[in-house]
Formats: sequence, C-alpha cells, structure tokens
Amino acid sequence: MRTVGIIGMGHVGATVAYTLFTHGMVDDLILIDKNEDKVNAEYNDLHDTLVRNDTHVNIRKQDWDGLEDADIIITAFGDIAASVKTGDRFGEFELNAKNAREVGADIKESGFHGVLINISNPCDAITQILQETTGLKKNRVFGTGTFLDTARVQRIIGEKLGQDPRNVEGFVLGEHGSSQFTAWSTIRVNNKIAFQLFGEEEQEKISKQSNKNSFIVANGKGYTSYAIATCAVRLVQAVFSDARLYCPVSVYNPEYKTYIGYPAIIGRNGIEEEIELKLTSEEKEKLEAAADKIKEHLDQLKKK
Amino acid sequence: MRTVGIIGMGHVGATVAYTLFTHGMVDDLILIDKNEDKVNAEYNDLHDTLVRNDTHVNIRKQDWDGLEDADIIITAFGDIAASVKTGDRFGEFELNAKNAREVGADIKESGFHGVLINISNPCDAITQILQETTGLKKNRVFGTGTFLDTARVQRIIGEKLGQDPRNVEGFVLGEHGSSQFTAWSTIRVNNKIAFQLFGEEEQEKISKQSNKNSFIVANGKGYTSYAIATCAVRLVQAVFSDARLYCPVSVYNPEYKTYIGYPAIIGRNGIEEEIELKLTSEEKEKLEAAADKIKEHLDQLKKK
Amino acid sequence: MRTVGIIGMGHVGATVAYTLFTHGMVDDLILIDKNEDKVNAEYNDLHDTLVRNDTHVNIRKQDWDGLEDADIIITAFGDIAASVKTGDRFGEFELNAKNAREVGADIKESGFHGVLINISNPCDAITQILQETTGLKKNRVFGTGTFLDTARVQRIIGEKLGQDPRNVEGFVLGEHGSSQFTAWSTIRVNNKIAFQLFGEEEQEKISKQSNKNSFIVANGKGYTSYAIATCAVRLVQAVFSDARLYCPVSVYNPEYKTYIGYPAIIGRNGIEEEIELKLTSEEKEKLEAAADKIKEHLDQLKKK
Amino acid sequence: MRTVGIIGMGHVGATVAYTLFTHGMVDDLILIDKNEDKVNAEYNDLHDTLVRNDTHVNIRKQDWDGLEDADIIITAFGDIAASVKTGDRFGEFELNAKNAREVGADIKESGFHGVLINISNPCDAITQILQETTGLKKNRVFGTGTFLDTARVQRIIGEKLGQDPRNVEGFVLGEHGSSQFTAWSTIRVNNKIAFQLFGEEEQEKISKQSNKNSFIVANGKGYTSYAIATCAVRLVQAVFSDARLYCPVSVYNPEYKTYIGYPAIIGRNGIEEEIELKLTSEEKEKLEAAADKIKEHLDQLKKK
Repeated sequence: MRTVGIIGMGHVGATVAYTLFTHGMVDDLILIDKNEDKVNAEYNDLHDTLVRNDTHVNIRKQDWDGLEDADIIITAFGDIAASVKTGDRFGEFELNAKNAREVGADIKESGFHGVLINISNPCDAITQILQETTGLKKNRVFGTGTFLDTARVQRIIGEKLGQDPRNVEGFVLGEHGSSQFTAWSTIRVNNKIAFQLFGEEEQEKISKQSNKNSFIVANGKGYTSYAIATCAVRLVQAVFSDARLYCPVSVYNPEYKTYIGYPAIIGRNGIEEEIELKLTSEEKEKLEAAADKIKEHLDQLKKK
Repeated sequence: MRTVGIIGMGHVGATVAYTLFTHGMVDDLILIDKNEDKVNAEYNDLHDTLVRNDTHVNIRKQDWDGLEDADIIITAFGDIAASVKTGDRFGEFELNAKNAREVGADIKESGFHGVLINISNPCDAITQILQETTGLKKNRVFGTGTFLDTARVQRIIGEKLGQDPRNVEGFVLGEHGSSQFTAWSTIRVNNKIAFQLFGEEEQEKISKQSNKNSFIVANGKGYTSYAIATCAVRLVQAVFSDARLYCPVSVYNPEYKTYIGYPAIIGRNGIEEEIELKLTSEEKEKLEAAADKIKEHLDQLKKK
Repeated sequence: MRTVGIIGMGHVGATVAYTLFTHGMVDDLILIDKNEDKVNAEYNDLHDTLVRNDTHVNIRKQDWDGLEDADIIITAFGDIAASVKTGDRFGEFELNAKNAREVGADIKESGFHGVLINISNPCDAITQILQETTGLKKNRVFGTGTFLDTARVQRIIGEKLGQDPRNVEGFVLGEHGSSQFTAWSTIRVNNKIAFQLFGEEEQEKISKQSNKNSFIVANGKGYTSYAIATCAVRLVQAVFSDARLYCPVSVYNPEYKTYIGYPAIIGRNGIEEEIELKLTSEEKEKLEAAADKIKEHLDQLKKK
Repeated sequence: MRTVGIIGMGHVGATVAYTLFTHGMVDDLILIDKNEDKVNAEYNDLHDTLVRNDTHVNIRKQDWDGLEDADIIITAFGDIAASVKTGDRFGEFELNAKNAREVGADIKESGFHGVLINISNPCDAITQILQETTGLKKNRVFGTGTFLDTARVQRIIGEKLGQDPRNVEGFVLGEHGSSQFTAWSTIRVNNKIAFQLFGEEEQEKISKQSNKNSFIVANGKGYTSYAIATCAVRLVQAVFSDARLYCPVSVYNPEYKTYIGYPAIIGRNGIEEEIELKLTSEEKEKLEAAADKIKEHLDQLKKK
C-alpha cells in the first residue's frame, strides 16, 4: 500500500492531495492542517469526488498517529502572502521557521521513518530545519528546491526555440529564491549545448523571464499551485517506485554544509546519490553565494 | 485530436483545466476569462507544469476563434461569493444571466458546433440561457446539475453503511439548488432498495447532511472545486469517447419546458437519450416544484 | 510501496504484469514461472519498455523469497490448450490441481501473508486448493470466477439495447465454467429490471452468446488475455486501495462449502463481506448444482 | 475525438490496441487484419474488457472506409517467425513488401490523410514502400525504427551504472536491424559523456547485449510485444498532442535518399523537423553503410 501524509492544506498542499487522489497514486492519504475548517473543507471536497473518480483512495484528516506508517510526508505549510508582499521567499522565513520546528517535533513524535519532501518556503532553509527537528537522516529529507525553477527555464527556452520543454536539459541551481541561477554550462537543447544557442544577454533575459513568469502566476491568482504541486507529485512517484530520477532538488550539500538546489538521484531512500557537475568557476561562485545567503539566514534565526 | 475550451478561470474552471491537462485527456486546451490577469496566471502555471507532466497539451488563451473547431466547451463563469453569501445559488443569477447572454453570443459568433457543458450557477437556469443564446440544439447543451449532488448523497449513504459510494446507485433530481431532492425510490445499495435500509427520518437526515457538506467545503475554503471539476471532467470523457454514460445532469425536459436535473445518457452528441424513471407521486410533485422554481426565476428575469 | 507477485507467465499472467506495469499501479513486480525462458522473455520485454513508459516499476524474476513482503499474489498458471481442446475448463483440472498444490506449498513457505487472487482454471476448484495448501484465511484467497463472465453478459445486453455495458448491472453466478448462469433476477439496465426487457427465450440466447464470444476469442487467437487480465487488475486495485468493490468473484461459500462465483465486497483484506442476494428458487437450484459440480470434481481428485 | 486505425492484429498490433484502449488514449479504434478470425478474437477480447476498464473506447473492425477520418494509422503486419528463423529482419522482407504494397494501396483508396506510423519489418524499407504506395507526404510517414533499439541500449547502460534508463540519453542509429549502431558520441549519462564512462571494448559488449536481449525475448515467447508496442504508443501520443518529442525514428533522409533511423521531432504533422547530429566520421560511415544496405534491398526488390 502507498501512504502519504500532507501537512498544510493551503493551495499547494491541497493541489498535491487532489493530484495524488485523482490519479490513484496513493492508497491512504492523511491531510493535516492547524486550521480545522480548511482541512475539513478539503477532506469533504475530495470525498465528494470519490465516486466520480476512477480509483479509490482512503482519506483521513488530522491523523498524526497515522504518520508512523506513512511512506512519505509532504510539508506545504506557510503563508504565500508574506512572500508575495516582500517579493522574496525569505519574507515567510520567521513564520515558517516556527512552523517547521513545531511540525518537525510532531513528525518526530509520530515515529515517522519514511521520506520527507518539503515544499514550504524559503525551501532550502526550511528543509534544513525540518531535517534537524525530525531527526531523520539527511538523505531522507529533501526539498522541491529548484526543480520548479528548472521547469520554468526549460519552458522558456523551449518556447524561444519552438521546442517542447522536455527537449531542454540542464539545471537551475542554488537557492529556490532570488539568488538562484541557471547553470548554462549544463543546459542542452536537442543535444546542442546552450552556449552555442544563446548569447550572454539572451541568457540573462531568459533567467529574468523565468522569475517574471512566477510573479505573473502569483499576482494573477494570488498564489502558485499547479506547477509546484506537479513537481512534488513527480518526486513522490520517484520515491515510491524507486525510480532513481535525476533532477535538481534541495539537498544537503556536505561541502557548503547547507541544503541547496543541486542535482541528485531520487529513489526509495530519498536522496540516493548526489551527482557532481562540472560547473564553470563563475557558476561555482554563484552556488557558494547562494549557500552563504541560506546559511546567514539560518544563523540569524538562531541568534534570535 | 481532442479540443476543449473553458470559459471562466475561477477555481472551478481552473481545476477542470488542470485535471484535463494533468491526465493528458485533451490535446488542445483553450482558456478564456474576462480577467486577463487570471487567465495569464493559469496559463503560465499550467505551462510551467508541462515538463513535469507525463503528457503534452497545447494551451492557448483568450482564443475565441479557436472555439470554432473545439469539440467541447465548458462554461464555469460566475462569482461563488454571491451564492455563499445568500445561501442560495440564485444569489448569482442576475450576474450570471448577464454573463451567460454575453458568453452565449460570443460562442455563437465563434461558429462552435460541438457540445456545451455548463457548470455556472444557478446551473439549470443558466444552462437554459446558454442554450437559447448559442442557438445550439437542446441535446448539445447540458449542465452538471445534480450530478454532484448525487455524488454527495452516494457518499453519505456509503459512509453510513460502510460501503464504497460506488456501490450506491440512484439519483438526486430537480434543481441544482435548494429545491433538489433525493429520489429515494431510485436509490439502491448493493442491490438492496433504500426504502428497506433507511426510515423516513433517516432519509431526511441524509439529504440535509449532503447540503451541509457542501457548505463545509464552501465555507472552509471559500469555494468548492475538486468534486464539481471531477464531475465535469467525467462528462467530458463521456462525450469524447461516446461512452453513453447514464447519469443525472441538467437536461432540457420537454414536459416541464425547462432544464432540470434528470437522468440521461451522455454520448458524443451530448444528451443521447433521457431515461424515464418510475417516480412516486410525491417525487413527481417535488420535481414539478423544482421546475416551477427555475421557470419562475427565468420569467422574472425576462420581465426586467 | 505496492508489491505484486505473479505466478505463471502465460499470456494471462504476462498481460496482468504488462497492465500493472504500464499504468504504474505497482512499485515492485515479481515474475515467476517454471519455464525459465518464458520468464526471462517477459522480464526483458518489460525492462525494455521502462524508458518509454511514464512511470517506473522494479521488476524481479523468480524471487520466491520476495513474496514474503508482497501485498498481493496473482496465480495464472495452467495450459489453456487443455481447456480449449475439451471445451470445458475442467480439462485443465488434473494438471492445474498438481500445479496448485506445488505453488500453494511454495507460497506457504515464502511466508506470504497478503491477499491471493487466483485466475487459474477451473477457477473455483483451483482457488479452493490454493486456499487449503497456502493455509491463508479463506477471506484472503479468492478467484476471478464469474467477474469476467458477468462482464461478457453486461456487454451483450448493452449491445442489444444500444447502451454502454456499464449501464447494465447484475451478476453471472456459479461456476466459472459450463454450469454458470446469468441471475436474471439481479440484472437491471438503466434502472429497469431485465425481466421486463427480455423474454425467456432471449435470455437464453444472451447467455449462449456470452459463452460463444469467449470461444471466438480463444479459437481466434489461441487464448484469451485482455478481458481476464483487466478483471484481475481491477481486483488488484480494489485490494490496494481498500475500495470495497462490489462484484462477483469466486469466494468461499459457507453454505455450499466450496468456492463459487457470488457477489462480495473486495477490500484490503480480500473478501470483506459476502452480499446475500434474493435469488429465485430456480436460480438457487442452479447455484447449488454448480456448487455440487465443483465439489464432485474436488472429491474425485482426492480419491485419486 | 482521437481516431486510430491499426492494420495487422498480430501480437504487436494487438498490444498497441490494448494499450491505447486500456489507457483511454483514443476515442475510436479501428482494427484491421486479413485474418478474419484473429481480428474477431481481438475485437471480442477488447469488448469484453470494456466494462472493467476506466474509460470507454469505440472499437470497429475491418472498417477500411473509417480510415478516411482517422488521425493516425499504425501498420503492424508481418510474420515475425521469418525474422526469428533467419536471424535478420530482412527475412520478412519479401512477404512484407507485398503486404506493404497492398496495404498502402488500400490506405490510399480510403482517403486517409493523417499520419502513418509503421512498425512492420524490415522497418526502414517497409516504411519507404508505404510512403510511396500511400502517396502521403514524406513527413507524414515514419517508422518506429531504432526508437526501441535506443531504449534497449539505454536500459543496459542504466543497469551497468545502477541508473534509471531515463537518465541515459543518446541514440542508436541506422537500420532497425543488424547494421544498426550505437552513436556513442551522443550518449550521455547524468550529464556525463559516455566516452568517459566506457572503453571501446565495453561499448562493443553493450551493443551486443542489446541485440542479445531482443533474442531472449523473441526466443522465449516467440515474439516481442510490450516494448515495441509501448514505443509505438509513445509516438501516437506525441502526434495527437503535438508534443514535439525528440527521438530516433525511421525517417526519410534526403542525403541518403532512404528511410533510416535518425533523430527527429515528432508532432501533429508527423516529422516536424530532423535534428542534425555532429557524428564522428566513423559513425557517419556506419550510417552510410546502413543506408546502403536498406537501399540495396529496395533496389533488388524492384528488379524482381
């Protein structure tokens, strides 16, 4: 049987629940939120869906004890308004750091020993706090990180060249936030290296467009949901089926001593392997800068 | 190829889009909304999803001309707040009647000649206006009607008896609104007739619980989305594949001369057949009363 | 995680494997067959499929030990040629009884404690032997029985009335073999009772047509595979997701003291409940006759 | 609506039909075979599946006229025994060339104007004959070619390195037959170039293993079906949804003046674009040799 717990029933958590549910990807789904009304609403909306859906899923709500036997937990708490207002995902940091400590302690108490995938922002820093407070091994905790940002850049490059985004490979690395960067040395389109395809100026434009697109979504509907939820669902699939999916996620980097967006192999144990890239020196600097930013925020928090 | 246009990018329309998209059920998806920002947001959120999804879908926005070749249009405009505030779906009537006339005229102009499935509330009355203004044949226009209400009652009965809602058959009929009723003479659970299973008092309770559940959803998250979207998607599937699905929808009833929730067979031409039920005299009265209510509202509107 | 073991890599077992695999319905799939070449062939053909499929599945072959942790085992051994030649599924009985005893003992030794779904023919008798030799509880062992025969009758009735087979309810009961019968008192189409729809002569014709159709398949391609495999997959889904699916399968009947096709509720523990039907006295006689036939064959076997 | 015609109801054609059917990927499916019994068998086996499947599909048999409105035709005729016996897919050439001319003429007569995907072997030569006899534009006719061979090499490399085959990129090029070759200059694993990963000897071994695996399948079960069918289904999906899938298929090469396995972009018009690779001179020679082999066979045929 496949059991997933989702903590946080905002738009993202609820969309993850709906997607897992409507595809019959799970057998047991546990929905948790501090706000009883919200979790009741989603619980009922999904239950009313059941008979019109192809497959059956057992749904339980607020079942912290049930997490003991869950295979995967997804954390999606937070308040996107704070991020949108400040224009930086660290706008949610103080609030979510508190959430993460509470949620982490509760997960620990539940006896959960599966894989934890964090979506809550600022993704890298919150993933780190969750790893520390749950006491789970580092490979068993990771964040969606730049998996979405990479999708966005793949899409823009695809559109520019009239290609499907799947024909674009490579990675956005670093912080799932304002200091992230496209590692152009890794980008290839239909077997062609991107350095040959785009000049520096155009590269800059593409990176900016990616960020702009995310704000078109967040401003236009007040939040983002479908793309980020689909990224999380893809990772859930990879863990269940031990797919050894190669993708950038927020993973603990032993060199930088922090969680940060970097390619890894995702399987049943979470992070099965980190794949070392041959980055340019400029890219390495950007990665280090991103790591520094994340660590600084984490340090400041500890001083408070 | 399968082409679907969705008019109205609120929570329901967007969830329909996402569900069709993420299941690869369509090849071309046209998203339309008066609010340019909203349609841009959903357009971008879905596009960013593409590369993390199994299947490809072409998405276009605000492409009224593209509706000419669409197989199916789903209308999901409106303002649920008006319904929630007044506690009756006719709270949205004036607004949506205006929307329906405009949208209907635009659909007519596009040259659309497929099947139109309406979700907008009050569902029965708005479906009627859309049929009249688009000039499409009556069988080619229908509404989700009591397809969702039936799902809700199936679920509650299932829960009461420890059975899957799919093991519960039968129909909620009449208005997709406050005058709807469970046609208990049609309800069967695992081949057992419901009259044997529930006393009158309990029947009453179940009907009330169904309505209560819908408000738990609407109040808890401000709208309902997953169950209603899944109902619409199920109907889309039935039209594309000519499934001859037997289910209650808002269908034009020649006896009552209005659209109203009643069982029909859904296939490639929309309503392929209406299935006559042997209702009790009490049920017939309730159905007539529901028809009268819908017609009254439509008549009042014409006088304005 | 979801783990399924399939014992028997003939056309049916292989099609079950392919269907589970290509839908991503399982995480771990164990393929077992006495014929090493056959299991190698399917193992390789599925492995070559992996990269062109949406989802990942781990496949192992001949891993008897792995069955200890499997959720579900499907048994699909046998030699359909013997059934086709004799025109009766008991043509395979002697061979498959031997197979069932061996396989049952091996399953017992593996420590398997999940749910066993048997397809091997003659289905009812073989299911009984498998229950006895595995030592699993009776509710944890059941056969596909008349689940397929019911589908065939649903289809023929649907075709006769221009309706989708899903709009036809009711059951074929008794032996998954020549003594099976359509329980016309249970058949309903679009809420109409079948007794009103078909005269006795026509009922007879429909039952014969169902049997004839199965021979058109078996003779035309040498075996049947897609419909029976899809039936088994549907049952697998019901067990994983605890769907409480209401359907006719080969289930142990305490009154008749044998496995026989009868409606039950399928959930995570296998048979969750048997649903008692109000059969006509004629139908009861047929059911008893079918039970007698199955028991006789089982008794004869014991005497050998 | 999505309509697919399949010509040839052997194991491959039937598996393509079953896969499209069971995933609800098509709305109308036309099954055609010279052997009336075979097509009847598959038609009935699929029809019996309907009610146990999530989605509906209309199936018609021997409906050549219906091909006029089909979006896609898949050709899967032939006699694999001839290929297995001779150990070379040109063992089927004479037979299938005849088939291809007949089928091509019949397709032309039907008025079909969609996209034709050929599986029949020897794939490249037969695709060429089908293009010529149907009179369809060259971009609207292509073959599965080395799409499967590439999957096989991806798998072997993945297994050698403990990686998912999806993490392996690159192409097998040339003939879908004995003169095919792995273009090692295009192979990359997790962003690493294969030249760094495997020495020449190991490369040789991998290529041989790929061929060996296909014979393990063909000898073990008498044919190959799942992997090749899944390849074809993937291409069908790409055409319907205009996915611009980047993959190696049998495509007309203007330089070599023959169909041959080479990467292209697959969309709604079939071949949307051919992607030029930077091959090594050795690889170019091999490609030319493969083209020469195919052309020679085609020339010999014309002389007969």
